[in-house]
Amino acid sequence: MGNVGSHLARRFSACNLPITQIYSRDQEKVEHYAKELDYPSTSDFSQIDTTADLYILAVRDDSIVKVAEQLKTFVNHEPLVVHISGSTPITSLEGIFKHYGVFYPLQTFSEDRPVDFTTLPLCVDANSEEHIATLKELASQIGEKVYHIDNRQRSILHVAAVFSNNFTNYLYTIAESIVEKENIPFELLRPLILETALKVQAHSPSKVQTGPAIRKDDQTIERHLEYLAEYPDFSELYQEFNKYLYYLK
Amino acid sequence: MGNVGSHLARRFSACNLPITQIYSRDQEKVEHYAKELDYPSTSDFSQIDTTADLYILAVRDDSIVKVAEQLKTFVNHEPLVVHISGSTPITSLEGIFKHYGVFYPLQTFSEDRPVDFTTLPLCVDANSEEHIATLKELASQIGEKVYHIDNRQRSILHVAAVFSNNFTNYLYTIAESIVEKENIPFELLRPLILETALKVQAHSPSKVQTGPAIRKDDQTIERHLEYLAEYPDFSELYQEFNKYLYYLK
Repeated sequence: MGNVGSHLARRFSACNLPITQIYSRDQEKVEHYAKELDYPSTSDFSQIDTTADLYILAVRDDSIVKVAEQLKTFVNHEPLVVHISGSTPITSLEGIFKHYGVFYPLQTFSEDRPVDFTTLPLCVDANSEEHIATLKELASQIGEKVYHIDNRQRSILHVAAVFSNNFTNYLYTIAESIVEKENIPFELLRPLILETALKVQAHSPSKVQTGPAIRKDDQTIERHLEYLAEYPDFSELYQEFNKYLYYLK
Repeated sequence: MGNVGSHLARRFSACNLPITQIYSRDQEKVEHYAKELDYPSTSDFSQIDTTADLYILAVRDDSIVKVAEQLKTFVNHEPLVVHISGSTPITSLEGIFKHYGVFYPLQTFSEDRPVDFTTLPLCVDANSEEHIATLKELASQIGEKVYHIDNRQRSILHVAAVFSNNFTNYLYTIAESIVEKENIPFELLRPLILETALKVQAHSPSKVQTGPAIRKDDQTIERHLEYLAEYPDFSELYQEFNKYLYYLK
């Protein structure tokens, strides 16, 4: 159980939802949760509650099937089993459990940062309308933005999330490495980064695009490329972006 | 005078700084400022105040030299003349005025969004230590983050700003167009976009990089590329990013 699991457990607790048990293979985490959240916890798989109606597998993508199969050997009833992954097909649980689904919170989770569940999109899916309704009901108890997102939509959202989050963060990293090499603190770029993200909270990004390429400011582009000559990778990426921005309508 | 000029004028007014005159060639703007900010204004270049100590040319990059030359024909003294551009060399004003500099607020300005001048980096430079001190003093009256940034540093900051702002916004645009094509509201990605920017306000982006490529999750990448096949441009950019992220330490 990683960051998503911890934040979900804390949120369930804060919303007074009944969790019969938290399992983590990490004994230290288990003790931490037992104490902080006042839920029964175990790090011993053979001791897990085998009577629950719902199991949330808040594990790494590549452990979902393994953990599901392990769980299957312990339970004799037919619980609803869900994973929390944006990129794993719902069908990964097919053939293991009769009732399965997805409970995908679309956000980047950090250990040290609180999560605002009132704005967080909770994307649910399941192999029957009834289970979709159950998961929607559960989601609405911890958040305000609940969506039924099917398998195809979820994988598309995941690709879009990679652009919005992973690639964006890499652009920040490039900016950081460029300025720090010149002994300029990255600090100077932070307000710009934040404002760029705040601006699209109300606007469509396609409507607020600016920059030298979109205004065909060749002189500035040329100057930038001269400077970037010492960073072949960044220069290549710069030109790739410009190629699209230059001809953007 | 565009967004930067308007925000600066409003801030000067809010901080009770004496502006002897606002010039804009746009008569409507001039009337608006005269009313809103209670500063003398004109849209007639021949009526500009020719006795000011400081002129701030808050104009488009490609108009700086033209406006400076025009100003030169009207003034007989030797004022300090500055531009506000991140990408225009300080030397663009050399040969026109004896005293010149740059007053560059590092932010993206929108007409409809307020600017937080307490966090905004104000980057000043000039052709003498004395003028640098003057501009720093002025900047510290409207903001709290004042930096002397020389010509080379400013152009590097500008490149970094293009990555942090223009390219980032383009990634948001890609994400928007991918999800909207599938009838998923862009709304779902907004909290993720904001959190990604908030996270690097306290952390170094290089320390919080995540995503399928950095964890070498080939299965997810393959699935993403399958989906992106219908968008050759986005697919190319996706692979370009992955190339770097895959081998990031």
